[in-house]
Amino acid sequence: MQHPLKLMRCRKDRERVVILGSGWAGYTIARQLDPKKFQAVVVSPRSYFAFTPLLASTAVGTLEFRTALEPIRGRRTKFEYFQGWADGVDFKNKTVAIEEAVDDPTQSLAPTRERHANKTKHEREVEKVREAKKGTLFNLSYDKLVITVGCYSQTFNTPGVRENAYFLKDVGDARRIRNRLLACFEAAALPTTSDEMRQNLLNFAIVGGGPTGIEFSAELHDIIQEDLARIYPELIPFHHITVYDVADKVLPMFDEKLAKYAMDTFRREGISIRTKHHVEGLRIGPPEHSAEKDLGEHTCYTLKVKEEGEIGVGMVVWSTGLMNNPFVAKSMANVPDLPRASVKLLESGSKIDGSSSVSWTIQKDPKSGSVITDNRLRVKLEARGDAKDKPQAILNDVYALGDCAILDGTVYPATAQVASQKADWLAKRLNRNDIEQTRFEWKNLGVMAYIGNWNALFQGGGGVGNISGRAAWVIWRGAYLTKSVSWRNKILIPTYWFINWIFGRDISRF
Amino acid sequence: MQHPLKLMRCRKDRERVVILGSGWAGYTIARQLDPKKFQAVVVSPRSYFAFTPLLASTAVGTLEFRTALEPIRGRRTKFEYFQGWADGVDFKNKTVAIEEAVDDPTQSLAPTRERHANKTKHEREVEKVREAKKGTLFNLSYDKLVITVGCYSQTFNTPGVRENAYFLKDVGDARRIRNRLLACFEAAALPTTSDEMRQNLLNFAIVGGGPTGIEFSAELHDIIQEDLARIYPELIPFHHITVYDVADKVLPMFDEKLAKYAMDTFRREGISIRTKHHVEGLRIGPPEHSAEKDLGEHTCYTLKVKEEGEIGVGMVVWSTGLMNNPFVAKSMANVPDLPRASVKLLESGSKIDGSSSVSWTIQKDPKSGSVITDNRLRVKLEARGDAKDKPQAILNDVYALGDCAILDGTVYPATAQVASQKADWLAKRLNRNDIEQTRFEWKNLGVMAYIGNWNALFQGGGGVGNISGRAAWVIWRGAYLTKSVSWRNKILIPTYWFINWIFGRDISRF
Repeated sequence: MQHPLKLMRCRKDRERVVILGSGWAGYTIARQLDPKKFQAVVVSPRSYFAFTPLLASTAVGTLEFRTALEPIRGRRTKFEYFQGWADGVDFKNKTVAIEEAVDDPTQSLAPTRERHANKTKHEREVEKVREAKKGTLFNLSYDKLVITVGCYSQTFNTPGVRENAYFLKDVGDARRIRNRLLACFEAAALPTTSDEMRQNLLNFAIVGGGPTGIEFSAELHDIIQEDLARIYPELIPFHHITVYDVADKVLPMFDEKLAKYAMDTFRREGISIRTKHHVEGLRIGPPEHSAEKDLGEHTCYTLKVKEEGEIGVGMVVWSTGLMNNPFVAKSMANVPDLPRASVKLLESGSKIDGSSSVSWTIQKDPKSGSVITDNRLRVKLEARGDAKDKPQAILNDVYALGDCAILDGTVYPATAQVASQKADWLAKRLNRNDIEQTRFEWKNLGVMAYIGNWNALFQGGGGVGNISGRAAWVIWRGAYLTKSVSWRNKILIPTYWFINWIFGRDISRF
Repeated sequence: MQHPLKLMRCRKDRERVVILGSGWAGYTIARQLDPKKFQAVVVSPRSYFAFTPLLASTAVGTLEFRTALEPIRGRRTKFEYFQGWADGVDFKNKTVAIEEAVDDPTQSLAPTRERHANKTKHEREVEKVREAKKGTLFNLSYDKLVITVGCYSQTFNTPGVRENAYFLKDVGDARRIRNRLLACFEAAALPTTSDEMRQNLLNFAIVGGGPTGIEFSAELHDIIQEDLARIYPELIPFHHITVYDVADKVLPMFDEKLAKYAMDTFRREGISIRTKHHVEGLRIGPPEHSAEKDLGEHTCYTLKVKEEGEIGVGMVVWSTGLMNNPFVAKSMANVPDLPRASVKLLESGSKIDGSSSVSWTIQKDPKSGSVITDNRLRVKLEARGDAKDKPQAILNDVYALGDCAILDGTVYPATAQVASQKADWLAKRLNRNDIEQTRFEWKNLGVMAYIGNWNALFQGGGGVGNISGRAAWVIWRGAYLTKSVSWRNKILIPTYWFINWIFGRDISRF
């Protein structure tokens, strides 16, 4: 066995910052940390950063998958990377246990449950010993730890959703959707497919009326109108798109007028919106009331909606709900016997004796289970026990940001914008070593959503500067082109927009 | 059940030409048949045409996968398409049995054996009845049949090759290779990987010294030198590329001087060439003599070479040998009771009575099993029986071209060039209805091969006009850019050449 980190270009004079995750928070901070001051090490099961706002476009081929990705490793990368999952953390000895994930077949898909969920606790413990021996589980020490592990997709335990729904959180999900969508049309085009099955296969349901669900519906409408209507003209009468949401309106982050504009646009485009509807299940196969029972390989799914009963669908795209990350839930709970030097006591903790070690609990948001941080993005602790006025503290050198963390006392949304602003801020503070002199505050830059047919919504920060329609679409495209990370993608994205506008989207499946 | 072909835009005054396959022969003829004269129907398990000479480039990310593809269906497509396998043909009633393949998980991979090979003949018969009932197997009638089903990859029954080797015949193969190559480097970069395992993982073997094997080795050398050497500088000393061939030289289609130039270039680039070497097996796991026995998930493969013993390798790319297509072997054998009108008797068949039906056998090449055609690409028959001077005939309205067919008395190579020239010729003949007035003759336009580091070989038709080095590389790129089918790809291919030259290849895996 090698020295565990032989390969790393260590510099003794630099602190090692281990960053768990490669999303909006983790990737941003990794790129911005000064390599002269810090040895940054990214640990993530994904070998890339996904530019999530463009995933809906890639799911229908308006853009190619890789235009929404930035490889973590590149010719100019100044930080280290290990492909793996964080499996545990020892705050006392400052090490993270890493389970490598080089060949993980789920590495590009939305996670919906703990990856070892099918094993008992004992089985997993036995496995861990074996993995440590094989080198697939190893420890990485840190000077500073940045936790940006994000959230999983929440299915609310709706029966069949985890197994049968299509998610849209990562590029593998986008590829699955693209292949399924085109396979539904190809199967419907077979001469032996019945009209009833055609109707089922070409009925697309989107669950969740947030920006992701709305933008995907809009992109789906676009590919059907602009491309599939010319390629499969006979099949177009069979298709339908429906957006379901339990709330009484979609796009809740937009003001009334813009949300209404979106709903009117959808109505004109023939997309149905069913608010106050409750999805109760999703299974493979046609509805009970269907004439067809044995449908061969091209069967549809059946969506069960409380208000509508069973509905045959070709695909359900599930874009609602965040689930607490199992790493946060399991590995970031209790912190026993932490030496006094590892924490910074807050006012209420002043009564704690300076020499002894104390057992702490990591503060969590009771609803989401997210880690609570102070306004310098440091993880908050409280002493264990039942006392009412429990001593509180800050865990030194441990930061949490992105969807897995909540800044104490704020209601910032779980968006890329908040995550990347936090990352920008933290990288700057660490580089300048001035975290005590300032505190993070989110600057709301507004929200945008594409609503199809070259229309979008834009709402400026604080609800001012609302724009809808074609002008907002120009802003939408301009913003994402500007924000896309690499020059490579700044060239490729408009190239594909142009090519697919002129020649149509590519419908090859492989 | 619908009328089987309700969806087809039939025109009574047009003959239906069913084309089996969507490769160089099938896709070319489908696009060129005059839609006013013929209703062309393509049947292929792949939803696209693969521009095979660029696959090696896509396998390392010099080009993106879709730049080597053309979707069969597009906005301007003038022919019909069903995604399926030809499962049988009835020459008497002029129908083809189609097994649909919309969700076939192998649809983008090199086939290496009959897809129902794991079933007994009886099991398959039972299954067929069920499939016909479900509509997954259906009949398609034709007026003219064009057989362009191609060949499978030949593994010569070398133990473990089918299961463990990486092929390079289709775009799914290219994607598997790209992911495996990058995963080998990522696994070697893990701190817990031993130097011995690093050496194994980064040892790449290519079996077959034809143009595909040589071009892939060259592309592999390029990505390692141009990109991976900058991304994983510590790993470069561990890597090695070796080309194996049983013959005594590589690139047999090039003349001595050019082949020597290629071998000298490879030697300079550090690529080993082992001619007269025999691969005896390939299995997963490290060699017997290895110190490591239990290697976790990132294990290597072991290649067994007669002359060298066991060698640990990260990946074996198998690019040698064609196997007769099972459709040709099974469904195109005997043709009993064919009415006299279905055939055109050749001279030797003049003794056959004009009114009765005769039992025929389709003529095959004894070595490859390919269908033998006359010089008008029509399938040749001979009467069944043991007679020495058996009557011969032509099967009316059935054409065979591409790698599954051999023009009687010729030794044309199994290349894209021959296939597409035959397709051009046949489409023209059918459009003009003048097949009796002319015959096909191949015009050798020369051969090209990329040999790495911006060098190529070009040998003009008849062995004249040999060029090697940078100038040949310009011809190589120019030729494939010109030959690429769509404007979409004529724009995207140089865009990617430029972008990957400037910014490096994308090493994200998903």
